[in-house]
Amino acid sequence: MGFMSVDSQYDILTSRIEEILPKKEFMYKLEKSVKNNIPLNIKLGCDPSRPDLHIGHSVVLNKLKQFQDLGHNIILVIGDFTAMIGDPTGRNKTRPQIDLKETKENSKTYISQVSKILNIKKTKIVYNSKWLNEINFNKLIKLSSKFTLAQFLERDDFSKRYNSGLPISLHEFMYPLAQAYDSVYLRSDIEIGGTDQKFNLLLARDLQKEFGMEPQVVLTMPLIEGTDGFEKMSKSYENYIAFNDSPNEMYGKILSIPDNLIFKYFKYISSLTLKEIIDFQLSLKTNKINHRDLKRKLARDIVSIYYDNKSASQAEENFDRVIVNKGIPKDIKIISISERVKLLDFLFDNNLISSKGEGKRLIKQSAIKLNDEIVKDLHFNLEIKKEYTIKVGKRRFIKIK
Amino acid sequence: MGFMSVDSQYDILTSRIEEILPKKEFMYKLEKSVKNNIPLNIKLGCDPSRPDLHIGHSVVLNKLKQFQDLGHNIILVIGDFTAMIGDPTGRNKTRPQIDLKETKENSKTYISQVSKILNIKKTKIVYNSKWLNEINFNKLIKLSSKFTLAQFLERDDFSKRYNSGLPISLHEFMYPLAQAYDSVYLRSDIEIGGTDQKFNLLLARDLQKEFGMEPQVVLTMPLIEGTDGFEKMSKSYENYIAFNDSPNEMYGKILSIPDNLIFKYFKYISSLTLKEIIDFQLSLKTNKINHRDLKRKLARDIVSIYYDNKSASQAEENFDRVIVNKGIPKDIKIISISERVKLLDFLFDNNLISSKGEGKRLIKQSAIKLNDEIVKDLHFNLEIKKEYTIKVGKRRFIKIK
Repeated sequence: MGFMSVDSQYDILTSRIEEILPKKEFMYKLEKSVKNNIPLNIKLGCDPSRPDLHIGHSVVLNKLKQFQDLGHNIILVIGDFTAMIGDPTGRNKTRPQIDLKETKENSKTYISQVSKILNIKKTKIVYNSKWLNEINFNKLIKLSSKFTLAQFLERDDFSKRYNSGLPISLHEFMYPLAQAYDSVYLRSDIEIGGTDQKFNLLLARDLQKEFGMEPQVVLTMPLIEGTDGFEKMSKSYENYIAFNDSPNEMYGKILSIPDNLIFKYFKYISSLTLKEIIDFQLSLKTNKINHRDLKRKLARDIVSIYYDNKSASQAEENFDRVIVNKGIPKDIKIISISERVKLLDFLFDNNLISSKGEGKRLIKQSAIKLNDEIVKDLHFNLEIKKEYTIKVGKRRFIKIK
Repeated sequence: MGFMSVDSQYDILTSRIEEILPKKEFMYKLEKSVKNNIPLNIKLGCDPSRPDLHIGHSVVLNKLKQFQDLGHNIILVIGDFTAMIGDPTGRNKTRPQIDLKETKENSKTYISQVSKILNIKKTKIVYNSKWLNEINFNKLIKLSSKFTLAQFLERDDFSKRYNSGLPISLHEFMYPLAQAYDSVYLRSDIEIGGTDQKFNLLLARDLQKEFGMEPQVVLTMPLIEGTDGFEKMSKSYENYIAFNDSPNEMYGKILSIPDNLIFKYFKYISSLTLKEIIDFQLSLKTNKINHRDLKRKLARDIVSIYYDNKSASQAEENFDRVIVNKGIPKDIKIISISERVKLLDFLFDNNLISSKGEGKRLIKQSAIKLNDEIVKDLHFNLEIKKEYTIKVGKRRFIKIK
């Protein structure tokens, strides 16, 4: 197989990114790859303790996809080693400890979601416990001797915590070390990550050099804000669009983003070319298109990435019926009940609310409607042999018949 | 076997020390030991990369000896694990890397020297590689999670280096961790060390608590100055009196110490009781004894600890003949030569100088005499069929006949 020319690859791969460094080394690696007809190893670290992917993750995956389409080797490193340890102090909530079974299940979920973007058959999937379990105390002393405390305290969150007197546990230095060793073991040429990973990705370079290897090039992608337009997209902020959201949910969520996010989303999570995006920007400036229509185009595009064009059209129709015309969706779920049941219990059992607490909050916010009337009673009961159309929030519907 | 009363033990063990902490816990451990008739585990870490013991080390060993005589278990932990790793950066000269063979040989040497003070048959000798080799990355993350960076930066040398911008390698945090884990593994009740070890000894307490164990009591002993009266006694400062020095060397070296060290040596490295020492102090004040005579008593005492009374008397006689009366020692070594030979080659071959460089330096300092005449010629040759008496420095003699 022949590779595309170095310059073309370079242009594609360095557009729509945050930073690539060092640029010269990247060029050099591409040249060597083309000359020797050998693909580059592109590494991405994956956290199996957080298996629910959202569109924020697609920023990085889209870039990987470009590498894959250009013929390079994509390596997903499932960080099962650290996930199974978690954070022994329990202070770091982003590092829950999960067991072997969960790790395997989560990895499966993870991979099935990733396959919505990558060609998973051409993707190498490895588990870092394989080599990290082999590291003993002796080897670890040698590994850690390659780094100084000052190097670690350069990292933003470490230096902030140190300077404000917050505790930094010694084991926290081990995770970046483990990640760096992954790059050594895998002979990674390029590692991709969010800007928050920059320190860790650079650290791996130092370790690779210590092992007499050509260091990896570091490619960072921006972190995108969630649908609130304020916080970084994250499950914990509830401002995310999940890979597994239904087409209707996806479409509706995109339509809810603030206007100033539209082009960032186009740039990093859509399938549009740069040229198309620039054309849209021009059209907006000259009032040939408005923000709402741009969002509709964005939403259709994104639904078709995760589903297909037909689903995207249906989601749009549904949105128009339900939200714009305040109607009932065509495919509303219909349930029958055989006995009197509390409204909130019913909604919870049918997954329209994630908890009773959420249900109560929604009632207090007048966000639950029964046959178009706002529900005010937290203990409202549904009677049998009656028909109800229930609307929860803007987009969730269910019918009882 | 019954133990001596708690109070008597407490008084003996806490006299002539730098610090014991916490005092209450020490008392409690003694009480429990006496009540249950179970000896305490007294731990001392030994560095097999520095097998040449000097009298500075005896300060700690003498205290161990008291514990041993009182019926407690002495555990010498040979730090072969870290010795075999050394300092991977090579920056720390006090951590040379030695191999398995050296470790074994050095440990043997070490133990044979220690047996000049301890009853080695009653001493438990263990090698920490046994359990530290078993620690994998996973376990190490858990261990290190028990400590914070701030805790380590409390240690004097770390904080000084950090504040003055000198590099601290990450692996340096591992050694105290390993040492602390030794205490966990060995269920140490008391760990003894020099004042420079205080941080490490205290760290082990924290780890023992994390493991649900009663923490060890920390007993520190002062570091004594070497014969120069200025630097801490150390092989690298050449101001030491080795366990393996000959009686004559030992005696001579003690006589060379500055007056202000006499009572510190009496207190920490002699066999004298506190009462005897106080009597000497009184005699000195009232001019009943002078510094020179005190040193002679100290020197005799020390030679008899490492050899016996007879050797001590002989060393004293020798000293008087050679140094005081500038005479020739009785037991002078006699060599014959069969061909013309360079003086410096001859001295080097017969171990009177440690290198030609030293020989040249001594000649320049007029410190080599041939038949009582100062040698000035660096290339002086010894002829056959002549008699020479050669004196090197103050105490080294050889005769050619």
